[in-house]
Amino acid sequence: MDSNVLSHQLSKETLHGSLTDPAIESMNLLNEIADRYPDAISMAAGRPYEEFFDVSLIHDYLEAYRDHLRDDRRMDDAGISRMLFQYGTTKGIISDLVARHLAEDENIEADPESVVVTVGFQEAMFLVLRALRASERDVLLAPTPTYVGLTGAALLTDTPVWPVRSTGNGIDLDDLAHQLERAREQGARVRACYVTPDFANPTGTSMDLPARHRLLEIAAAHGILLLEDNAYGLLGQDRLPTLKALDQSATVVYLGSFAKTGMPGARVGYVVADQHVAGGGLLADELSKLKGMLTVNTPPIAQAVIAGKLLRNDFSLARANARETAIYQRNLHLTLGELTRRLGAAPGVTWNAPTGGFFITVTVPFVVDDDLLEHAARDHGVLFTPMHHFYGGKDGFNQLRLSISLLTPQLIEEGVSRLAGLVTARLP
Amino acid sequence: MDSNVLSHQLSKETLHGSLTDPAIESMNLLNEIADRYPDAISMAAGRPYEEFFDVSLIHDYLEAYRDHLRDDRRMDDAGISRMLFQYGTTKGIISDLVARHLAEDENIEADPESVVVTVGFQEAMFLVLRALRASERDVLLAPTPTYVGLTGAALLTDTPVWPVRSTGNGIDLDDLAHQLERAREQGARVRACYVTPDFANPTGTSMDLPARHRLLEIAAAHGILLLEDNAYGLLGQDRLPTLKALDQSATVVYLGSFAKTGMPGARVGYVVADQHVAGGGLLADELSKLKGMLTVNTPPIAQAVIAGKLLRNDFSLARANARETAIYQRNLHLTLGELTRRLGAAPGVTWNAPTGGFFITVTVPFVVDDDLLEHAARDHGVLFTPMHHFYGGKDGFNQLRLSISLLTPQLIEEGVSRLAGLVTARLP
Repeated sequence: MDSNVLSHQLSKETLHGSLTDPAIESMNLLNEIADRYPDAISMAAGRPYEEFFDVSLIHDYLEAYRDHLRDDRRMDDAGISRMLFQYGTTKGIISDLVARHLAEDENIEADPESVVVTVGFQEAMFLVLRALRASERDVLLAPTPTYVGLTGAALLTDTPVWPVRSTGNGIDLDDLAHQLERAREQGARVRACYVTPDFANPTGTSMDLPARHRLLEIAAAHGILLLEDNAYGLLGQDRLPTLKALDQSATVVYLGSFAKTGMPGARVGYVVADQHVAGGGLLADELSKLKGMLTVNTPPIAQAVIAGKLLRNDFSLARANARETAIYQRNLHLTLGELTRRLGAAPGVTWNAPTGGFFITVTVPFVVDDDLLEHAARDHGVLFTPMHHFYGGKDGFNQLRLSISLLTPQLIEEGVSRLAGLVTARLP
Repeated sequence: MDSNVLSHQLSKETLHGSLTDPAIESMNLLNEIADRYPDAISMAAGRPYEEFFDVSLIHDYLEAYRDHLRDDRRMDDAGISRMLFQYGTTKGIISDLVARHLAEDENIEADPESVVVTVGFQEAMFLVLRALRASERDVLLAPTPTYVGLTGAALLTDTPVWPVRSTGNGIDLDDLAHQLERAREQGARVRACYVTPDFANPTGTSMDLPARHRLLEIAAAHGILLLEDNAYGLLGQDRLPTLKALDQSATVVYLGSFAKTGMPGARVGYVVADQHVAGGGLLADELSKLKGMLTVNTPPIAQAVIAGKLLRNDFSLARANARETAIYQRNLHLTLGELTRRLGAAPGVTWNAPTGGFFITVTVPFVVDDDLLEHAARDHGVLFTPMHHFYGGKDGFNQLRLSISLLTPQLIEEGVSRLAGLVTARLP
């Protein structure tokens, strides 16, 4: 660059407000701390187990999808090449296979026309919030603490999120009713409530069956949608029906992810939006129009890989993930056992006991902030996630999230041991 | 569904304004007409040539990238699997390879840290507009007619687009200066001007070298960014330097696409944003934060396929596309020749003569609207794109866009013959 020429300068004040929101800054900070202490045992990262990754599977899945196009759909070589190489339809090329998977694993009867295949859960969330935020009055309800991906999509669409309290049985239905009443009083229009009934991130908690029914009743009575996030449901045992499977009045927009059950590196998710739009088609058709302006279509190659995994496993990702689910169960039980062994007698230290998913919430009688995390990483060699990051920095300062998904038994024993060292040093 | 339960109903009035914008409705209409007349010769679709698509290339490109990770980056099998299967860094896993391609083919020296790999050009455009739209005052300038993808990204981010006139030499620099003055008077803050200096969609026109220099000067003098779209530049002959290659003051945000030169089905694009943000890093870092909230990361599998194509071709997509470029050149010349042969003597019928890209603009002495398109499809068996769709329905009603990218010589001869039949029947 010619040093005589003035370079274009930008300032953060002239960039979109989401970029200076504390939630975004805090996620960056977490990543920085993790990067600075690569040798610390990470009970922070919520990534799926990696030991069964095998590059040859990508080739195999692509071949499975190719066989499907040739044998089941009677396509010729030129048609198959076009399907994989060329721009595809915006809703996706595997909606029918996703619908078969939902029938097989979730007892959800989804019309493929109501399915939009997306670039992961995150794009699906963005599309739904973009569609529903039509005026300044529109707000979204979500349990607090909540998934940072929801916070991010809300920031990008300038959607205010009103927090609803959480209980050990998921979203607090009394507080939900209270917030709906408050919105009515204030002239806000609640478009939807975001919920994760199974093994929520970050708490690990699930809703029981009566609470699911009651939530559906409240939503239908108030004319709001439920945005159901089910990233972890398949990876549990004794599974309860999803809200979408119980839904009889198109109250639920179902947000699916193949990141944990298919392959994170394909970045394929989807949304089932079978709500009718007056004078038009389905909400899925509207989401598809938005997607056409955002990413045009989900990479057909990535969709083909996920399709191949579905085809190779008779559409059941519950069965396909039997080994992974067993490992997550083992890790959960092992971590809970180690917590009891190391911290069972520690005064004021408690934790919940999720039956699935990736996360455990630990409560301690002292402040858990980013300084403590840095101290833990530097002096104890262990990483976790301070819970306040899931409260927008407004609460949760005596809790932390432990993730169990990436660990081996040895790392769990050592990780909990190091955590116990940190915790006991802080106790009175 | 239980018929006694009232289904959730939505109305378009309660959905985001972009969904009822005429631009979105019109693109849907075009697709519907094309779907209804599958046997019409399509001179409408701007898709890349398909005859060289070969599914085995996907496997080969994946292997090339795998070899690169093993041999050049000394990664072991577990590391390679993790790279392809697991969540990746938000900026992308192939930024360094994209930078080498830009140096090789475009003489652009891009720091890999300034590159964000995106889900196609479209996501890159969205991220840039989302970042730059910070207040109600912020507007974008763009030549009219303009690419519908720009219109879509602007709608999603609630960004007003102020039109700037076009000439046969690209954007009208006098009108650009006029619009900048008008914005100043009205208190609007112009953040950027979108331009496609090479073979623009929809007009096919390019800017000469003096106009490129002058555009850079105007932008730098007014402190606005230029958003350079270069989807087609590599597919021409006697290529001029891009704005980014001429840029000495970080005035240009460069938006790249591998859809035409790599593989549409990978849906990989990128943005080079080397602008410094006061108190922070690069604009690319801010775009990466937004991407983390939108799609988390571009599918690593799709990135790997594009990386493999770059590696197999010594980073030159100009060379890799020599066969395709020759076909596009042949198709352009053939179409222009057929237009002369069939319509050279037709009064009031003219067209431009692009030297590259996919598109030709034809001007006729009668109204070209969607009714005419439907008539052309039904009664003449030929499809084109009425130009008013690229003017937001406000102008261009005596022009049409012809696309030459997907056709064979036989289809070009027959397509232009059918078009000539339609045109001559309308002449006085």
